[in-house]
Formats: sequence, C-alpha cells, structure tokens
Amino acid sequence: MMKLAKKDILGIRDMSREEINLILDTAESFLEISTREIKKVPTLRGKSVINLFYEASTRTRTSFELAGKRLSADTINISASTSSAVKGETLIDTARNLEAMTPDIIVIRHSAAGAPHLLAGLVRQSIINAGDGSHEHPSQALLDMLTIKEKKGKIAGLKVAIIGDIAHSRVARSNIYGLSKMGAEVVVAGPPTMLPRDIDKLGVRVCTKLEDAVADADVVMMLRIQLEREKQNIFPSLREYARHYCLNRRNLGLAKPDAIVMHPGPINRGVEISPDIADDPTCSVILNQVNNGVAVRMALLYLLTGGSE
Amino acid sequence: MMKLAKKDILGIRDMSREEINLILDTAESFLEISTREIKKVPTLRGKSVINLFYEASTRTRTSFELAGKRLSADTINISASTSSAVKGETLIDTARNLEAMTPDIIVIRHSAAGAPHLLAGLVRQSIINAGDGSHEHPSQALLDMLTIKEKKGKIAGLKVAIIGDIAHSRVARSNIYGLSKMGAEVVVAGPPTMLPRDIDKLGVRVCTKLEDAVADADVVMMLRIQLEREKQNIFPSLREYARHYCLNRRNLGLAKPDAIVMHPGPINRGVEISPDIADDPTCSVILNQVNNGVAVRMALLYLLTGGSE
Amino acid sequence: MMKLAKKDILGIRDMSREEINLILDTAESFLEISTREIKKVPTLRGKSVINLFYEASTRTRTSFELAGKRLSADTINISASTSSAVKGETLIDTARNLEAMTPDIIVIRHSAAGAPHLLAGLVRQSIINAGDGSHEHPSQALLDMLTIKEKKGKIAGLKVAIIGDIAHSRVARSNIYGLSKMGAEVVVAGPPTMLPRDIDKLGVRVCTKLEDAVADADVVMMLRIQLEREKQNIFPSLREYARHYCLNRRNLGLAKPDAIVMHPGPINRGVEISPDIADDPTCSVILNQVNNGVAVRMALLYLLTGGSE
Repeated sequence: MMKLAKKDILGIRDMSREEINLILDTAESFLEISTREIKKVPTLRGKSVINLFYEASTRTRTSFELAGKRLSADTINISASTSSAVKGETLIDTARNLEAMTPDIIVIRHSAAGAPHLLAGLVRQSIINAGDGSHEHPSQALLDMLTIKEKKGKIAGLKVAIIGDIAHSRVARSNIYGLSKMGAEVVVAGPPTMLPRDIDKLGVRVCTKLEDAVADADVVMMLRIQLEREKQNIFPSLREYARHYCLNRRNLGLAKPDAIVMHPGPINRGVEISPDIADDPTCSVILNQVNNGVAVRMALLYLLTGGSE
Repeated sequence: MMKLAKKDILGIRDMSREEINLILDTAESFLEISTREIKKVPTLRGKSVINLFYEASTRTRTSFELAGKRLSADTINISASTSSAVKGETLIDTARNLEAMTPDIIVIRHSAAGAPHLLAGLVRQSIINAGDGSHEHPSQALLDMLTIKEKKGKIAGLKVAIIGDIAHSRVARSNIYGLSKMGAEVVVAGPPTMLPRDIDKLGVRVCTKLEDAVADADVVMMLRIQLEREKQNIFPSLREYARHYCLNRRNLGLAKPDAIVMHPGPINRGVEISPDIADDPTCSVILNQVNNGVAVRMALLYLLTGGSE
Repeated sequence: MMKLAKKDILGIRDMSREEINLILDTAESFLEISTREIKKVPTLRGKSVINLFYEASTRTRTSFELAGKRLSADTINISASTSSAVKGETLIDTARNLEAMTPDIIVIRHSAAGAPHLLAGLVRQSIINAGDGSHEHPSQALLDMLTIKEKKGKIAGLKVAIIGDIAHSRVARSNIYGLSKMGAEVVVAGPPTMLPRDIDKLGVRVCTKLEDAVADADVVMMLRIQLEREKQNIFPSLREYARHYCLNRRNLGLAKPDAIVMHPGPINRGVEISPDIADDPTCSVILNQVNNGVAVRMALLYLLTGGSE
C-alpha cells in the first residue's frame, strides 16, 4: 500500500527511484482496463481534471483526456495561446482563477520552462507538467520507461541511445534523468549544435556520430526534429540532417539484434527514422509507447488524488 | 435480432438495402430517447468515441457528440487542420496513434475523398465517415432517408428532386446512392458546370432546369452552395444562380401539393431557398432532419459497437 | 419550495428581488458541493447544456462547464466566431438547429447586445446570457451579489462604488440593476468618455473622480479596461487612466475600513488595481467571486431545469 508522497508531477529530475517504480507498477495494473469491453472504472468519479494547454497538442491532450475519462473523472480542456496572453502575470492569475473553481488536478503544457513549477507553488491543486519548453516532459519519460520495462523486462543495465536534438528536447532531458536513475547507461548523439554544453554533467556519454551511440544499444530512442529550427541555422538542412542522423536498416544493424526503436511522435518519416524501421513490428515499439501513455497518465491521475498501489 | 455486419460506415454506395433499413429502424427506436425527461441510456458506457474533424463543423460534430453522450459514451473532440498537416502520411500516423489509445469508434471528417476508407483499412476501430471531400456523407443521407420515411411513410416509388451543385456535393452523392437503392426515382438539376459528367451512370435523370426536376416531385432536396465557389467561375454570380435555382413559392408549386422541402444546412437564404419556404412548417422538414440526425448517429454508434435491432 | 418562474436568464433588469434571492439562496446551498471529496451530484443526469460562445472566454466557459459537470449534466462546447458568420440570420438558424437537437439549456455569449433575447424568443430551450455586447452579464452580477452577501451578510443599505468604463461594461450594467434592486446605494466613477449619457436614469450617483465614489464605500468594484479601447481615443493612455482610476492603498483608504475589493477578471494589474491590493486577502475578494461563480451557475442550471429551493 505505497502512496505517492508528492503533490505534483513536475519532472523526473526530482523523482526518486521508488516513486518511478510506484508509478510504473500502478500504470501496469491500469493497462488491463484499456483492453476491457467496458473501459471505465469509477475511481475518480466526482474529480475534475483541467487540461490547460498553451501549446497545441493532439496526442498528449487526447491521452490525458482519455486517461481521465477512463477513471470517470470530469475533464475540461482549455487551449490558451501564449501569444494572446501577457505571459508571467496572466499565467499566475489564470492559475489562481482555476484554483478558485476547485478542480482536483491541472495538467499544463507551456512553452516556458518552469511554468508548471510556478503554478505548483501557487495553487493547492496537483499540477502535472505535460511539457514545459525544452525542460521536462515527465509523463513521456514514464511511458517510455514503462515500454522499455515491458519489452526488456528491466531498465537497469540496458544501454539506451538517444539521438537527435538533445539540447532542445524535453523528452531527452526527462529520459536522461529517469533512465540514469533506473540504472541504464545513456548515450546521446546529435549534431554539435544540438548538444547542450553542460550535457556531460547529466552523467551521459556524448557522441557526435549516430553510429557510435547506437553500437550495442538495447534501446534506440529517436527524437523529433522541430522542422522550424531548419530556418534558425541550427542545422544546415533536413537532407543533411537525415544523411547523418536518420535511423535506417543499416545503422540500426550496429545495435543489439533484439534492440527496440522508440520515438515520441509525431514522426518525420525519412528525417529521423526510415519508414521501414518505423513500421517494423519486430523492432519498433512506437505504438506501444502511445498505448502505455494512457496507462501512465491514469496512474498519475490516480496516485495524485490519493490512490495507492 | 439483426446485427450490422460491418466494421465501418464509409458510404452509402457499399451499403445494402437491408443494412439501410436496419439503421433506419434502429434510429427510429432511438428518436424517443431525445424526447425523454432524462435523455440518456447507459448503452455505451465505457466506450469512447473520437470525433476527428479536419474540416470545421458545428452541427455535424455537435450531433455526433450529443449522440455519443446520450448513449453514455465518452466523447473526445479533435479539431485538426489539414493545412498544418503533411497530408497522406500524417493522417496515417494520426490514425495509428489514436488506434493505440484504444477508442471504440473514430468519426472522421476530411477534405480528401477516401480519407475515411484509408483509415478503416489501417485500424481496428470502427470508422464513421462524417464527410470526405465531395465524395460521401453517409450519416446525412441516412437522416434524410429517415426524414422522408417519417413524413411519407415510405421511400420506394417517391420522386425526389435534388437541386444545386451536384458535382461537388457529398450530400447529393450519398443520397443518390441511398434513395435509388430504396426504390425512389431521383432527378437532379443544376447549372451545367455543377453537373458531373458521369452523372447518368448513377441511374438518375438529369435536368438543367429546376422546374423540370421539381415537377411532380414528392421530395425537393436543396443543396448548400459553397459561397467560395463563386470566385472559381463555376457559376457567374450568386444572383444569377438564385434567379434560376432558388426554390420559391412559385416553382415549388410545380411539385406535388404535399411535397416536402429538405436542406442539409446551413442555408444561404435567398440563394438556395427563399426564406418563406425554409420557414414554412407545412412543407419544410429541415429541422426534422436535424432532429433525426442525432437519432441516426446514435443508431450508428450503437450498431457499430455490436448492438442489435 | 420556491421555483423560478422564468424560462430564461437574460438579464438582471427583468429579474425581481425574489428571483434574485431565490438564485442566491440556491447557489449558497450548492457552494458546499465544490468542497466535497466527490464534487458531483446526479441532479441533472441526462440533461444537456450547450455552451455557445461567439466570443473567446476561458473563465466563464470553464465555470459554466464545471457547473454543468458537477450536476452530472452533459456539456457541449461550441466556439463560433462572429466574423465567419453572417450575423443576424445565421444566429437564428444556428439556434433553430441546436433546438432541433433537443438540448435542455443553451448558454450563449455574443458580441451583439440582445442576441440571447433573440434566441430566447425563438427556441423552446432555456437560454442563459453569458454576456451580450455591453448590455448584460447576469451570472456575473449574481456571483458578485453572492460574494457581497457572503462577506457583508447583506446587500441592502451598503454603499457600492463601481469604477471604470461604465459605458461599455455589461458587468457594470447588470450590477447596477441588481444592487439597486437589492437596496444598495450605487455610485459610479470613470472618465467622462466612459460614462453613459443616460446613466442618471439608472438611479445611480455619478462621479468623475474615483476618490468621490470610493469615499465611505463598503464595496469597491473595479471594472476591466478593454485594452483595445486605448486606440479608439476613448481615453488618452493607459498610464493616464491608471493615474486617475487605479485603486491603490492610498485611495482605498477613503473607503470604510472593512471595505471589500472586487474585480470580474482578468485583471490588468497596475491599470485598474495595484497588485498589492489585488492580492491582499484582507480586502480582496476576487477569488471568492470566481469560486462563487461556479455555485451561481449551478443554481441557474438547476433552477431552469425545474429545480426548487
């Protein structure tokens, strides 16, 4: 009967190994509900969850909404646009207003790193960070870890390669924290302009060549390229990027024979990953990640409202 | 205890007379629910329905959402914009992602003809076509047929005139398939630029004058003009169009005395139909169509999740 | 066992003192639900509420949606844009269409004064005005009155100062009607360009100086400045406005020592109200207003569907 001793889910950095295990175990037990004829349990009846999205998102919002509804919570979507809002202060006022309407959980996505932490300090409700700038995306890392555990039976001792725009990826950051904590060996690779300067402080090995990172990997995690960055001269061109960092049959051959391939979606096919690899059911676990996402978010909603293992 | 032996509702073209009758009979039995004090039955509790709309729509989306909620399903709305999406591939990835979240039914509206069929072949879930390009709009034709049956007691043997932009109307196409199958005589009329070249192959009679089509009709179905087509030189001007193809008291006088007038909405008053006809309760059944729409969509959701008559 | 003998909630002007008291008393009894562990009662199960918003609104829409869900109603959101709609007629057609889908209540916000009244005359469903142009915003005035009653134990005999753009504020108008009816003394202040010409007919005292209105007030209600008005030359500049009409520690000192400060939100800090006053829990009741808003809207939904005290 372990309970989560946290008010909020802000990031993986401040999460203990025990907390991660509790969430993953709880999520595992929720996986079964989504396979039932009647995919709904009354656990969160009378609770309300607000999805406050300052950045457009189809899949993360849908995943949280489905998670809430499968637990019988009331879900309310707010799509706010950062542009129309005077940032800082308005976010605070919005949060205090939502607090006064007494929901139970506020799920927030915001382009500013730290926005969820600001809210968490202000309001009584539980805050879940659904992605803040290039900072953290904890529910993504948790669903990634659940998928690895499901496919490999463990996380500790595995070699995980993370490839792409490490510097600007909240997915990379949350996974680096989580996988390291759980005992995996993390290697990252990407063009020099996409590697953060302080990356070695995170305890990961850094390569500039994809091949060096993928060699002998158990897990190859490809990151999404933000296409709009092409214009910012961070990398020369998509074609150039793909030539060096697109996962294909040839360079995946350097990984362990039973290596799994992950991607947070949506995929830019032929840029980050070749279509035949993305769709190959023997190695790609991309859709398992999506499926596990609903269960992980059910677990977070459940544990934050006082549920126990 | 007849069941629908179909995974998806993609169009009326591939539907049998028996299937259409099953849907209409089921819808009829659902009509009563929307008149109750408590307009809700627990039939689809624990099922989830995703409304995936790539084209803006207020009434069709609201109708599907109400239909789902009255059956106690969980409904989730996604408004995607085709413009922001790399078409083909992204639609496939979106579909596979939604599939992995295990909803029960995906209702899709898309500007590309065939988009729902593509999805239906890819995912396990039932797909309902809520309008694909100028191809089909099956739930609209079904609610039109339910309305005709309700008002006329039958469909077979009736003369139905369909007036307007036949070439670009999914409503016309689905109704032509359905009404012909059910034994009605269908006559279409519109400006030559709005009549498809292969129209005679559909087994309908073609007129260029509204008066010829409306003569002796039991049902006059007016189509919505897409105002943006005016600029594409498909017709000279709205005024010119209205002069020849607007239904008014005078030309409606050519139809049977008890003829009913239909329109899928929203109406351009004075363009397709004169306001006095649109609002005349003795002939206009436009609001009955809307009311029947919720019942037809309840029937589709119910039958696709295994319900029987 | 008093019932509301009204089909619609269109404004405070046509509401009797008894009706206002009935709503406030009912809201008070609903306040407790939002503090429960399970914030949901089955009162409106099987009822559907459509939120039809022609103007963007986060807090009012969220408040109505939460109110509906806490009473177990099905809620459906429609965000329509006035710009894309041919005004007058399309609103009527939209309303008739929604009516045909047989919801129980339609909550409408529209930029045109009188839009909700037009609908109310057309459709069988109950209409709630959630703000129409600069005309009325009855649920806001009701939540304001509930907050005053909660904090002061009464409304009659209090002196209430309303400060800001009186001419263009539906919040001011509804509050002037309501507070006067309930026996409060209302004084308004604002720049001459923001005072309506016929204001004295409403039975309020008019000042041009904030200090004159605030003197000895029990309640100071600040209005939101529409920032886009600055360009319309209604007032010289925000800085100029703030210098004369921003509530601060100094001018609030002229009010009664236990005066409360209200604002309908969202606040322009430093323009209408200084941050230290807005956030001072000893005088600011701004978040109580938000909290009471959900209860007032629950009361309206409940009473309009036949509930009694």
